This record gives sequence, C-alpha cells and structure tokens, in this order.
Amino acid sequence: MAAAEAETSMSAEAYPMKGGDGPNSYAKNSAYQRGVVDAAQQLISRAIAENLDVEKLPSSNTFCIADLGCSIGPNTFIAVQNILEAVEIKYQGQGLNSHIPEFHVFFNDHTLNDFNTLFQSLPTRRRYYAAGVPGSFYVRVFPNASIHFFHSSCALQWLSRVPKEVVDRNSPAWNKGRIVYSNSTDEVLRAYEAQHAEDMECFLHARAQEIANGGLMVLIIPGRPNGTPHSLSSVNQAHQLLGSCLMDLAMKGVVQEEKVDSFNIPLYYMSPQELEAAVEKNGCFSTQRIENLPRVSALDIVTKSSQVFASHVRAATEGLVKQQFGDNILDELYDLYRKRLEEQPSIFESGKAINFLVELEAVFEQNRCFSKNVLNQISSTD
Amino acid sequence: MAAAEAETSMSAEAYPMKGGDGPNSYAKNSAYQRGVVDAAQQLISRAIAENLDVEKLPSSNTFCIADLGCSIGPNTFIAVQNILEAVEIKYQGQGLNSHIPEFHVFFNDHTLNDFNTLFQSLPTRRRYYAAGVPGSFYVRVFPNASIHFFHSSCALQWLSRVPKEVVDRNSPAWNKGRIVYSNSTDEVLRAYEAQHAEDMECFLHARAQEIANGGLMVLIIPGRPNGTPHSLSSVNQAHQLLGSCLMDLAMKGVVQEEKVDSFNIPLYYMSPQELEAAVEKNGCFSTQRIENLPRVSALDIVTKSSQVFASHVRAATEGLVKQQFGDNILDELYDLYRKRLEEQPSIFESGKAINFLVELEAVFEQNRCFSKNVLNQISSTD
Repeated sequence: MAAAEAETSMSAEAYPMKGGDGPNSYAKNSAYQRGVVDAAQQLISRAIAENLDVEKLPSSNTFCIADLGCSIGPNTFIAVQNILEAVEIKYQGQGLNSHIPEFHVFFNDHTLNDFNTLFQSLPTRRRYYAAGVPGSFYVRVFPNASIHFFHSSCALQWLSRVPKEVVDRNSPAWNKGRIVYSNSTDEVLRAYEAQHAEDMECFLHARAQEIANGGLMVLIIPGRPNGTPHSLSSVNQAHQLLGSCLMDLAMKGVVQEEKVDSFNIPLYYMSPQELEAAVEKNGCFSTQRIENLPRVSALDIVTKSSQVFASHVRAATEGLVKQQFGDNILDELYDLYRKRLEEQPSIFESGKAINFLVELEAVFEQNRCFSKNVLNQISSTD
Repeated sequence: MAAAEAETSMSAEAYPMKGGDGPNSYAKNSAYQRGVVDAAQQLISRAIAENLDVEKLPSSNTFCIADLGCSIGPNTFIAVQNILEAVEIKYQGQGLNSHIPEFHVFFNDHTLNDFNTLFQSLPTRRRYYAAGVPGSFYVRVFPNASIHFFHSSCALQWLSRVPKEVVDRNSPAWNKGRIVYSNSTDEVLRAYEAQHAEDMECFLHARAQEIANGGLMVLIIPGRPNGTPHSLSSVNQAHQLLGSCLMDLAMKGVVQEEKVDSFNIPLYYMSPQELEAAVEKNGCFSTQRIENLPRVSALDIVTKSSQVFASHVRAATEGLVKQQFGDNILDELYDLYRKRLEEQPSIFESGKAINFLVELEAVFEQNRCFSKNVLNQISSTD
C-alpha cells in the first residue's frame, strides 16, 4: 500500500462546481451537461451490449460503477441509471436474468465537491448502493481491479493543475493578461499541451490499476474537432472573453492587473486524435470506439440567452475566480460578461466545439501497467 | 435488487451530530467519544489477532472496513487506523507479509451527516482508499458479502426513530412533559424497549447480508450495567435534566408546552444482556466476546466542567432540538442546562454508565438469514 499512500498524498488543485442548489449552483446550471448525458445514452448502451464481458464478473456478484468527476447531480444520477439498465439488459439478453448482480455506485469528485448536496439529492428509490469517493481522478482513488464500469462526462477537460510556467513571470511561457492558452504564445500553448499529456498518462495509469477484468471505460469529453486550432474552439473563445472582462476590471482598478496575470483557468479542450495518441502512448487500454456525439440540443437553449450562458459559465468558474479575486467581484464580473456576450452574439456561431465519446478496454495484464514508473513522475510534478 | 430498493427507501429519522468545525461542532466536542475509541483499541486488536480469518479473504485482495455511524472525525480516522494496523500485524504474524491487502474504508452515517467536513479532514497520508456511505445503518447500505470488518462506536444507542406511541396524546404511552423514557411510565419504557428490539433485529439482519465470509463485527456501545434500572443510567439522568430545562422554558413561555410533550430523544441505553438477547434472537451471528471497556479517562475531563459537559451534550442533541423548537432557543437552553449542571454536580456521581464491546461473527449461511422475512417488517414500521 505504499503506492496508494504516495498517490493519495498528491495535491491536485481543486476547483469544484458551485455547490448547493441556489440560483448560481451547478445543480441549477448544468442543463447543457444534462444534454450531453442524454446524447451519450444510446452509445453507452451499445458499448455495454457489445463489449461488456459479463462472464468475467467476480464471484462476489457485485457490479461496481464509478462516475469520475460526478459533481453534484442530477446529471450523474441519470447517467448511472442508464448504465445500470444497460447492464441489466445485457444479462437478460444472455439468459442470465436470475444472475443480475447487485450494483455498487461510486460517485467521485474533488474533496471540495459538495457531497452533502449530492447525497441529499440521491434518488430515494434507486436500485444501487451508493458511495461518495473524494479525490482527484488523476491519482488512484479505488483499490486494484475493483471497478467494472468507469464513466466520466464533461470532466476530463479540467487539468489537474495550472501549468507552473504560465504563472511564472520569469518564464517564457508567462501568460500575462490572459486566462486561457488559446490566444496566447506558442510557449503557453506548449505548457498546456504538456500538462494535458502528463495528466492523461496519470489518469489512464490509475484507471488501468483500478479496472476489473472484463471491465469497460466510457469517457465523454468536451473538445474540439480534429485539426481545429485551439483559438477556434468556441469554449476557449467564451473563456477568452471572460479574461478580457477581468482585464477591463483591472483597467478600472477593481482588481489588480498582476492578479489577472497570475490567474489561469486549468481547462484544455483536446481533439479525438489527441486522446487516441494519449491512449496509445499509455499502452494499458485499447480504443474500442471513438466518435462525436450528436449535437446537443440543450446548447441552443444555453446559447440563446446571454444570461443563461453567463450563468452556465459562472457555475463552472466562480470557485476559481473567487479563490483568486475574492467574493466581491463576482456579480460585477459575470454581469459585465453577460453584457459582452450580448454585444458579440457571433461568438456562438464562429467557434467550433464537439463532445466526443471514447470507449476503452484494458488490454494489458494489470501488473505490467503497474510496473511502469509513473508514480515517480506524479510525485515530481507536485 | 428489489430488496435493496425496498430497503433504501425506508425513511429512518436523521439526527446527525453538529457539523462543521465551529465551537459547538461534534468535531470539537467529542473528546469523550475519542476516549472510548482509545479504550477499545487493545480489545479490537485482540479480536483481529484471534478471530479474523485471513485465509477466507476474497481473491480480489481488498480488505473492506466499514465504520457505521462514523460522524465527522477525527475519532473515526483513529479507530480505522487501529483496525488497519491490527489487520496488517495479523498478516505479518502469519508470514503473509507480501500478501497484505489494499484497504477500502467506508465511512457510513446518516445522509444529513456533514460528509463535506469529514472528507476535508481525511488524513492526507492514509494507507487506504476512502468512501463515504450515506444512509441509516438500520437498513442495507452495502452489497452482499462485501465488508470484512464492521466497526461502530458510540452510535447504536441512537434508535432509528422515536417510538410513535410516545408522541401520540391518545396513547397510554404518551410521554407528556418528558423527553426521555427513563423517568416515565411503564408504557413509555415498553415502547422504547420494543423500538430497540426491532432496531437491533434490523441492524443485525442487514449486517448479516453485508458481511463477507470470515469477517468480523465489533460494536462499542454506550449502555448501562446489567441489572441497572434505566432511571439510574447517568446519561439518561443527564438528558432528563435537559428535558426539565425545556419544561422550565415552557413555563416561562419561551417554548410551547405541547412542543415539549411531542419531543422525545431517540436514545436507548441497553445493557450487555439485552444486546446478547438481540443477537440470539436474530440468529445470524455468534457472540465471540462481550465485555465492558475500562473506564474512559476523558469522562473525568468532560464531567469536571459543566461547560464542557453541556457542550458535549449540545453537539449531540442540538440538531434534534433545533428541528423541534427552532434556532432561537439554543443558546438559552444550553446555558440554562449548564447552570443546572453546576447546581447538581452529584449527577456525575450517582448515575451508572458503561461502554461495552461486543465481537460478533456470522454463523449462518447468508442465504438462510436473507430468507427471513424481515423486509416486510421494516416496511410496515415506516
């Protein structure tokens, strides 16, 4: 267990979604993410029908599902219910009706996630035993070979941390005056790319130990189409606009300019090709399927109203902004942001964005993956 | 999973300890409970050394520990660490040093427990994977045969609910003007005894399904010595005094008298004999050991100061009082309580109290216990 000790002690940065169930909460401002869950449902059911090997299930007869980066709900409950029903159908389809397992569902997110609200909103008539698992998914959070189905939706775009160089004024990658990498120098972009590559390696390495024999992993990732420059990613453009609002507040003296200079959002929008390359480099999983989700209809709702879109961005970024600039600027900042969105409705049309799904199976003996010396790599980046 | 669905939908009452880490929180007012954990340490280590059957562990090589009624910490972390080290020593003692399993620890308490504070205070360098499990331990909270070591300390004195009759003004068991059963009529006492018997049956039935082959359960229960009337239990006396303070506030018009009449604390202080009888009636476990803990030295600290003792009682009862009477009376009530304690220091000497430990092993095939029709019983008491 020395390994587990080393890994759980890694201090990933934490930027939970806005907790509680108030008007600015994630729970009340995640209609788009709900749309992604709905759009992925059929593909996940197909993955389970085609590739889940129920014969390999352990004798304990418990099927363990983990939702990584679950946030607060209700989206995670809907996703989990879809998975559970697809597994039941798989058993029934194989004539194993009387062998349908019990389900243990692990809801994972940062330690600072609002688990109290998550637990209090759990469906009362659920057909599974529920547990909350605090901790960054960039390190180990489960015992060896214990999870049969990993799911993650709209979470892997968050990096484990802001790359150090971009907030170091002595580095060529210093990201002065900006809060995202997409309209920055090549050095900044490379720093983000390197962080993303390292994070994906840590993520896949950890999951390779945790996945049970015959298990599956399905990731739904907000990203950008293959070949699209980061600067044309619409979410990057949206965050870039938030950065320019912060600079406006700096010009007005509401916030210190150097605080904006040292503020960066740890988001990275990968392409499907980048994800495939990370999986290949890691070597512990094979890609069974990778495809774009159908257009999420909730996107139309979110982008139709600058107010709704601003609230959507606020629910995800308020925690970070508050940490850097304090409580007082929140209303002013997001109100300014809403106004800027109104002035530039084209932002919703010019940019490009996709959600893509990747289905992974473990391919190597877990011991082989475990022997790779990634732990040292994790420690050295702390 | 129809069973799990029925069971998780049972609505046990929830009365979590005071959350957060403020001056009135459980985290800051549980020195006595910490003393109990320390006093039990050696006995638990001995139970593991003598009776844990490591040969029967499942092939997945994960050892699962559950702390039932864990509250907020740090006591639960200390108890879990003791258990983990004792299991490691057991493996080492059998020459199985290289087979020491990974540990998965499940922290269980009511859904309204402050899991956010619990997770944020988890030891950073722990040697286990941690999960929080929301839900009453009087119903199923874990999959079949999934837990190797059950622990519970200072939690089983809480009933699943206030017996209905004692708050029904048309019942002969109506507990008018009192908030505990110990100085009440025979009818009230019998209602509490019946609730306790039913709760223990539900508790043992649920655990019998959840315990893994070769697993152990160790319960530490605050109670009263065999043969001691409830009225001489010192904790009952302490709560009785709180009830008389509430009646004083009713006389002064601060609270309504009928609100006091309909307020009862769902605590029951059993004797070791009563626990043994419940285990025998249930039939799924055998009692390996039952013995009183050494006197908890922290009791002297808690009882030396009326202020400390009042805070200790407040941390455990404030949630219930607030639910019935609102926020406003809390300071006045517990201040009056502190004064009454100062006037009657004899309360700490005249009463009797023990903490006893019981060590249980599953004796029947789990299917046999599962076939007992206790589920209907649970549903009908809702």
